[in-house]
Amino acid sequence: MRYSHLFTKTTKTVPADSDSVNARLLVQAGFVDQVMAGAYAWLPLGLRALRKVEGIVREEMNGLGGQELQLTALQPKENWLQSGRWDAVDVLFKIPSQTGKEYALGPTAEDVVTPLMKTFLRSYKDIPVAVYQIQTKFRDELRAKSGVLRGREFLMKDMYSFHVTREDFAQFYEKAKATYLRTFARCGMNARITESSGGAFTKKVSHEFQVETPAGEDALVICRGCDYAQNAEIATAKVGDACPKCGGVLEASKGIEVGNIFDLGDRFTNSFDLTVSGADGAKQVVFMGCYGIGITRLVGAIVEASHDDRGMIWPKSVAPFPVHMVMIGAKDPAVAERVRGAAEELERALSAAGCEPLFDDREDARAGEKFADADLIGLPIRLVISEKTLAENAVEWKDRKTGEQRMVPLAQAVEDVRVFMTA
Amino acid sequence: MRYSHLFTKTTKTVPADSDSVNARLLVQAGFVDQVMAGAYAWLPLGLRALRKVEGIVREEMNGLGGQELQLTALQPKENWLQSGRWDAVDVLFKIPSQTGKEYALGPTAEDVVTPLMKTFLRSYKDIPVAVYQIQTKFRDELRAKSGVLRGREFLMKDMYSFHVTREDFAQFYEKAKATYLRTFARCGMNARITESSGGAFTKKVSHEFQVETPAGEDALVICRGCDYAQNAEIATAKVGDACPKCGGVLEASKGIEVGNIFDLGDRFTNSFDLTVSGADGAKQVVFMGCYGIGITRLVGAIVEASHDDRGMIWPKSVAPFPVHMVMIGAKDPAVAERVRGAAEELERALSAAGCEPLFDDREDARAGEKFADADLIGLPIRLVISEKTLAENAVEWKDRKTGEQRMVPLAQAVEDVRVFMTA
Repeated sequence: MRYSHLFTKTTKTVPADSDSVNARLLVQAGFVDQVMAGAYAWLPLGLRALRKVEGIVREEMNGLGGQELQLTALQPKENWLQSGRWDAVDVLFKIPSQTGKEYALGPTAEDVVTPLMKTFLRSYKDIPVAVYQIQTKFRDELRAKSGVLRGREFLMKDMYSFHVTREDFAQFYEKAKATYLRTFARCGMNARITESSGGAFTKKVSHEFQVETPAGEDALVICRGCDYAQNAEIATAKVGDACPKCGGVLEASKGIEVGNIFDLGDRFTNSFDLTVSGADGAKQVVFMGCYGIGITRLVGAIVEASHDDRGMIWPKSVAPFPVHMVMIGAKDPAVAERVRGAAEELERALSAAGCEPLFDDREDARAGEKFADADLIGLPIRLVISEKTLAENAVEWKDRKTGEQRMVPLAQAVEDVRVFMTA
Repeated sequence: MRYSHLFTKTTKTVPADSDSVNARLLVQAGFVDQVMAGAYAWLPLGLRALRKVEGIVREEMNGLGGQELQLTALQPKENWLQSGRWDAVDVLFKIPSQTGKEYALGPTAEDVVTPLMKTFLRSYKDIPVAVYQIQTKFRDELRAKSGVLRGREFLMKDMYSFHVTREDFAQFYEKAKATYLRTFARCGMNARITESSGGAFTKKVSHEFQVETPAGEDALVICRGCDYAQNAEIATAKVGDACPKCGGVLEASKGIEVGNIFDLGDRFTNSFDLTVSGADGAKQVVFMGCYGIGITRLVGAIVEASHDDRGMIWPKSVAPFPVHMVMIGAKDPAVAERVRGAAEELERALSAAGCEPLFDDREDARAGEKFADADLIGLPIRLVISEKTLAENAVEWKDRKTGEQRMVPLAQAVEDVRVFMTA
């Protein structure tokens, strides 16, 4: 992608209403634009990062045996009345229609996925089954805040699993935990499994996946000696106590919740009378689990956890592009032409190798401006090509994360990028 | 994908409220499920077809120079007031919030994309530019009808282009026409460019892309001798008249509108005061075009235009899977085991070649039932593997579209599938 073609521009102006690092950096780099409080448009660079995260989540959910579908955002009021949630969920948007009906605008999907499964599941042989979607959700938050972390409109992966025994559910739940940890790790994030309350969903303990960062909304009690962690809201142990798991000292921390998993029991299958026939022909209760990942929120968490004072630092797996190519002009038109020729050739070679770069080909921007933009946008590798580097038949390579710089022969650059990105 | 793993099931029952062929077949084959009037869940097989269509549309829009982004469904009331459309668009869902505010639920995106571009476009050098999204849209239709053709919630591709001269706009508009025709052709559909009214969007003539089918909602006046076509609503010529283009005789036809393009002029750039500075530094008017494709509607149109009395007939490019493998059991357990082994081997080989099949591996379904399901689901190729075919070291190949059947040596099957699908 040519920088001169990209319609977004970076800005030094700090957005007036940015209450968080993620909002500030994502807006300044032209990754997102705030359409209204709690609702962000995802612009080309931001959308590419979002799609990378989405791709990793999809692969992992397929690996867990999930079958992808797409439910609806408009949901019948009757379903929400049947589950007893029409008046119980305070963030539920209720939409009047000119037909005289009212609809729910889905903040989650138990109330439509359970009746859907009821039309297909007949026998115990039809389950276990898990279905998921990656879908825009809506919540009528009183206060939208923290940039893309808590919005009124956001992208979420929600999976629902169905089981005939509690044991089978428990087994799947443990597999989901491991899959979640791997999913976040693949996005460059270390997440901690944290015990928490089930919130509006269930009275049981549920598990959150927390990325530790000072900007986190959630207070945690954690052990640095092992993986023990509790949300402070339900913590049975206090900071300073001995870790009940390894005996270490418990500390306070803060986290951003990027995922959560719930044991729903028969809460919804009971509401919607979803049962299956057992081996003996008798009706069997169906147990249900629900597994969420905030996709847009995860992108925000990555920015919160991975940036410096110059800008974002994208993990390789979710960077919008692997390489930020910077072309530095020359006064002599013949030299400038030679630099452009070499840069365009490198751009083609990188693209052909599956490493399409973001190529800052601007003639009218100063080198310092281009470097500042590269730091702000934060792609893993910066490659500078100039009269000076061409004299050595090379490009200047800079690692955004470590800051390390070195000259790389032009003939070697594509292979080095490929190796670096797959390492 | 194994049929035994897929949670959906086909059904012979005609859905009570199906008012169209697309709804009936898509529901009976388990591609979609009606969540409420005008809102369909897309189930695994349907979602795969939808994603194939989406992929083709995305490629073509990128080829046209479009930059993909994702705007919001929640839109500020102020924007809709500013464009004068808050009370003028009768299908606009208006959402009350507990914050006391009201939001629009986007049926289209001019009212948010124009202010967005205003923050980035400064100079005539920043344009032309075109941005697009593939996003769920909402319309408060009084009567949802025709299955996935006219819903309250649907997936749409909407592109917006910005220009400093009418000539530049006109050039892009013509390129978009050609791109649209190619997009529909790649989805297996012949669409006709049809002159029509601009509806609520513009007073100018706009162009619709109509797929001819008896189920079409739109009455057309067309010429079979050339590509002349008008929507009957605005037709200046009548059925029986001479074609103004080639002199042939005009006929009546019916079509499903799968796309439309509009010359918006300065209708929205004026509302939102989007101008750029010209070469001389003076403010310049920005002209705007808008280009829609109904993605879910296009899937419905494909079903309407391509089916027979046994089921759907998917064009190769958008079929959920290329191959429907049917394994026929045998009474002798040793033989049944051999058939299953050969089938699983073929499944692996097809998947490795990028032609993952839908594999009907059920032990408890009769051959007739499996064949009926294959016809209903309508994948391009059916491959039957049984004791009889194995005796010849072959599979039975059937072309869903032509009905042609032949035996294909097992060793040749993968290559034949690959060639057939890319032909």
